Amino acid sequence: MSRVEVGRAERLAVLTARLVAHPSQLFRLEELAGPLGVARSTVSEDLATLGPVFARFGLGRIETLQGARGGARYLPEQPADATSRMLAQLGAAVKEPARVLPGGFLYLTDLVCSPVWAARLGQIFAQAWRPAGPTHVLTVETKGIPLALMTARSLGVPLLIARRDARVTEGPAVSITYLSGTTGRVQAMSLPRRALPPGSAVLIVDDFMRGGGTAKGLIDLAGEFGAKVSGVAVAVATATPAVKRANPYLALLVLNRVDEGTRWVDLEPNLDLTPAGLP
Amino acid sequence: MSRVEVGRAERLAVLTARLVAHPSQLFRLEELAGPLGVARSTVSEDLATLGPVFARFGLGRIETLQGARGGARYLPEQPADATSRMLAQLGAAVKEPARVLPGGFLYLTDLVCSPVWAARLGQIFAQAWRPAGPTHVLTVETKGIPLALMTARSLGVPLLIARRDARVTEGPAVSITYLSGTTGRVQAMSLPRRALPPGSAVLIVDDFMRGGGTAKGLIDLAGEFGAKVSGVAVAVATATPAVKRANPYLALLVLNRVDEGTRWVDLEPNLDLTPAGLP
Repeated sequence: MSRVEVGRAERLAVLTARLVAHPSQLFRLEELAGPLGVARSTVSEDLATLGPVFARFGLGRIETLQGARGGARYLPEQPADATSRMLAQLGAAVKEPARVLPGGFLYLTDLVCSPVWAARLGQIFAQAWRPAGPTHVLTVETKGIPLALMTARSLGVPLLIARRDARVTEGPAVSITYLSGTTGRVQAMSLPRRALPPGSAVLIVDDFMRGGGTAKGLIDLAGEFGAKVSGVAVAVATATPAVKRANPYLALLVLNRVDEGTRWVDLEPNLDLTPAGLP
Repeated sequence: MSRVEVGRAERLAVLTARLVAHPSQLFRLEELAGPLGVARSTVSEDLATLGPVFARFGLGRIETLQGARGGARYLPEQPADATSRMLAQLGAAVKEPARVLPGGFLYLTDLVCSPVWAARLGQIFAQAWRPAGPTHVLTVETKGIPLALMTARSLGVPLLIARRDARVTEGPAVSITYLSGTTGRVQAMSLPRRALPPGSAVLIVDDFMRGGGTAKGLIDLAGEFGAKVSGVAVAVATATPAVKRANPYLALLVLNRVDEGTRWVDLEPNLDLTPAGLP
């Protein structure tokens, strides 16, 4: 790196690039100052400039921590109207008649696995649940994984993936059985013993919820580790049954009905992003 | 948003935040200029300033497209020495004795599922394979999904997840069977018919490769859709067998041996990120 001095505008761009590329990761001031060849105090001033700019343009929040362990991190967030527009756009995509499958199922795989949509929805989940302070995100294979990963990335916490069967390559595991409402069968889920320390706070993320049996299974699994559950976040929940077995939960879209004959999908975006089913 | 004029330094920060938060996504100039309340030509000048700054600080590349459909996108990339340091750090983490499981397996789940490591490795995969021009990333459930998602996100292409069994909720599917070297059994994989258009170019991503049987299965599955395969990217490959059934491939770490008794893990980072096994 050459020794040419870096102007303030360039510094703001470099700081922004580093912070935004690593959501929720704490950077110490010297880590930020070092490559720029400036003092920590200069970086402090630059961060104080960036905060209001990020707020004004709805780009999220820059959190600065004072003191010896001082530093800064970027919390990806967006204004409520941006979230509403996003959910309206998602709702329109889900309503495409070609998504209606034989049996009245909906093809959502391309959406919930899309890097762009997973990032958008994961950020919405993270913003809604951050106040609950989850230390881990938990999902069960398979289709919830992209959403869960992007939620964990936005929150800056690890992702745990429960498996349908315990694999030898993951070592000793804790298993539970649960009743799946979708298949009507007893199913198993497991998580490596070492995956979740006691006292953790778990946010459960999945793509779809009907009765909440699978999410309830994940709650029970987390309980076996002595973890508490912050709640459940799903992309789509069915309107019925109205009472789910897993609470509190937050669904971004509420699915009223799928008419296989006319390929009509009746759903609505959930505009109140306060988790439902709070005790 | 208030009508206060935005200075150049603030504009550079806003442009950086928007580009970096959406890797490989093309923004039209008017999309970038609109919220800033400036002319397209001003944004063009700002992008011309940002390009060299990004290059100088190893933050990646800003690609600008001229003309009526003109715009800009951010390609996440890093210098070779940053990649080397990252792989040395990953190698050290993999060598932790506590990772050695009964049977001489290695516990890697927390690393390959970590949002931070998945983002880092996905960016390395994307940078190495971008010249091959993949249009889709393909993996098979489960542990390769986070890496595959972050690779797809870096490349700005969709992610496809092959399932071990065809689910009714994904509609008509194409299935293949293949011989898994790890289990010694014939296994099945499937992908929804609508997932992959003919003429696609597929990059296969997985966490681990021994003989390459699973990756070869994914190559065959892509072939059923009339897709060509750019290659295979894995986090860890075993040194033996030296000749894999899936080529060309790129492994970030090469695993020589795991000694269960002494919990000794013999591996080395692959410092030549040119895919091996090119014809």
